[in-house]
Amino acid sequence: MGIIVQKFGGSSVATTEKLKKVCNHIIKEFEKKNDVAVIVSAQGKTTDRLITEEKEITVSPNKREHDVLVSTGEQITISKLAIMLSEMGYKAISLAGWQIPIITDGNFGNAKIKSIKAETILDLFDKGYIVIIAGFQGINENGEITTLGRGGSDTTAVAIAASLHADKCDIYTDVDGVFTTDPRIVEDVKKLDMISYDEMLELSSLGAKVLHNRCVEIGKKFDIPIVVKDTAKEESEGTIVENSKFLENMEISGIAKDDNISRVTVMGLENKIGKTYKVFNLLAEHKINVDTIVQSFGESINKNLSFTIKTADVPEAVELLESNLEYISAREIICFDNLSKVSIVGIGMTNRTGIAAKMFEALYEQNINMHLISTSEIKVTVLVNQDEADNAVKAIHNKFFK
Amino acid sequence: MGIIVQKFGGSSVATTEKLKKVCNHIIKEFEKKNDVAVIVSAQGKTTDRLITEEKEITVSPNKREHDVLVSTGEQITISKLAIMLSEMGYKAISLAGWQIPIITDGNFGNAKIKSIKAETILDLFDKGYIVIIAGFQGINENGEITTLGRGGSDTTAVAIAASLHADKCDIYTDVDGVFTTDPRIVEDVKKLDMISYDEMLELSSLGAKVLHNRCVEIGKKFDIPIVVKDTAKEESEGTIVENSKFLENMEISGIAKDDNISRVTVMGLENKIGKTYKVFNLLAEHKINVDTIVQSFGESINKNLSFTIKTADVPEAVELLESNLEYISAREIICFDNLSKVSIVGIGMTNRTGIAAKMFEALYEQNINMHLISTSEIKVTVLVNQDEADNAVKAIHNKFFK
Repeated sequence: MGIIVQKFGGSSVATTEKLKKVCNHIIKEFEKKNDVAVIVSAQGKTTDRLITEEKEITVSPNKREHDVLVSTGEQITISKLAIMLSEMGYKAISLAGWQIPIITDGNFGNAKIKSIKAETILDLFDKGYIVIIAGFQGINENGEITTLGRGGSDTTAVAIAASLHADKCDIYTDVDGVFTTDPRIVEDVKKLDMISYDEMLELSSLGAKVLHNRCVEIGKKFDIPIVVKDTAKEESEGTIVENSKFLENMEISGIAKDDNISRVTVMGLENKIGKTYKVFNLLAEHKINVDTIVQSFGESINKNLSFTIKTADVPEAVELLESNLEYISAREIICFDNLSKVSIVGIGMTNRTGIAAKMFEALYEQNINMHLISTSEIKVTVLVNQDEADNAVKAIHNKFFK
Repeated sequence: MGIIVQKFGGSSVATTEKLKKVCNHIIKEFEKKNDVAVIVSAQGKTTDRLITEEKEITVSPNKREHDVLVSTGEQITISKLAIMLSEMGYKAISLAGWQIPIITDGNFGNAKIKSIKAETILDLFDKGYIVIIAGFQGINENGEITTLGRGGSDTTAVAIAASLHADKCDIYTDVDGVFTTDPRIVEDVKKLDMISYDEMLELSSLGAKVLHNRCVEIGKKFDIPIVVKDTAKEESEGTIVENSKFLENMEISGIAKDDNISRVTVMGLENKIGKTYKVFNLLAEHKINVDTIVQSFGESINKNLSFTIKTADVPEAVELLESNLEYISAREIICFDNLSKVSIVGIGMTNRTGIAAKMFEALYEQNINMHLISTSEIKVTVLVNQDEADNAVKAIHNKFFK
């Protein structure tokens, strides 16, 4: 007996047949005398289809109205799911974002949740309802529909769980949890039973697509365990994301890979305060996203500054920097394309020496060159040639998990 | 300078190309310094598609959730239209039913409008907006989405016009107004410049599909002129439905035909108070809709009672009455199928003799037999064989409009 929040993504609710599987997961928790709130995304390609139709009108739609349009997909799913549960004899009721309400800031297309009126849901629990909630949407303080942007429905789910003080938030998806690395690269990946919020955040930001950072951050802040499960499996333990308790013994939790990275090096940058700032300010003004940054102090009056960007941004970045060589007081811009970022993540490495060395050893044994190294408290990132990246992941996986 | 309400139906907004035509009609009124509120239906077959998908789940969906589902179609249209007008440089804003709000009773699927907060729309007019409103939908007093049932968007439009004290309500459709009869039957039909609310009500209930009775009734009650126009035409006078002023000289306004009618006669019904009631109460309890009723007083202690029903209802009605012959104290049930109802409508006939005779003469000249005659103040209805009905309409049209 508790409060369970479940979230089902677009592919989990894509067809009537799949909605039946979703109902089974809901009913199982409800029959255990739990109060159940269910958050759903739009079915399959519904939102993509709406956007394609919108593009017939314009590629830069009015942002307020764009949100009115794309929020309809979730409304279709909640009603269908409530209809199906009612048909199966259960009391179910749907709520759009405005009906709770979920109040957001006014940032159309990428709104942040400010508050959720949990009483609306709790009252329906008291009346015996399974409550079906549209993900991805809320309203601003003027009562205008706003959507939450990427990862929106996961964010809705964990935020609802936090507002209800739920026991946990089950995120149903098409994989059975969080794995040590991408199963498409390494055959014998291992499913993690648990992972900490911080590790999950690092893995997400490093390219693992399981959970979006926003929802993990909310889970961490309000201490809501998030369980990643496979919709297709009737019984699944999945992976629980929660505050680390028993993870001290694991060296690392996972290995992430991110392709299409380029390394840009600003050579002979004058070694004075403010010069580094000028470089990144210039890039930020042109909305070029900079990832890992490494600065070397090889020369007394000059330094080399390296950073990674998406390969797609290279032409603009290089042209920008080269035309501003004088302004940033640098000598030359050098660029390496076709790189991948390979990272290991684990809170275990905080109290343990030699984790990074073990990673480097794995790469050395395979004769894989590292173009850049960057470390934080719970991760080590290296840049390698993209055509060697899969081998790098395999080698590291073998080293840590065999 | 005034307030204009425009309504565009599903076929008028079906495609991006058609939405552009809609924008032109809106802009034309807006550029004349009018405040413009626009009510739209779901695009083309959108609602049908949603219902088809719903039927994969159940044919008897939870009524509350059904309304949540089918109300999404209009939300898609309002956002697209507002996006298109914004793209063309106009200030446009969309409102779903709950955002105004349009408050209805709690009758899901067939709700009646109770109130409309006009200030929401008037405030947006003051800020210079063209206001785009979802038709067919409102919310009940619990904030649950309700839909208005058949003719819902027309009803929304005229009700909005009434709440705004608008100068007129333009109903754009795929015909250029109200005609003397169905153009598929008679070649040289005439478009009416004007028709009274009462005549329009009779024509609608007799099978003319142009406007739904509900919206005409609201127009009549609040004295809002309703103009029926063709979306495809850039300039169209259409037909204005309003309180009769100049119509005294017209004998009739239109001729309507309704097919698939059956006449049921209850023979030898005991001529006592309450017997007629028993017959119709029995039919009502079984939700069989009875149309025209004619009672003859041929015998002293017995009477024959005739009425028309849809042919589809005949098997149930006849079985019901025959199994209750004793209860209703009747002798026999006789039924004629394959009939059509042909009616003439005109407020002119109130002060004028010989209108009915002129209609009967037209039928007599074509040797068309009448199975039943029923008259009211502004209409005359006859039943004829269905295979003679088109000829009947032509003959009557020739008689009155040549």
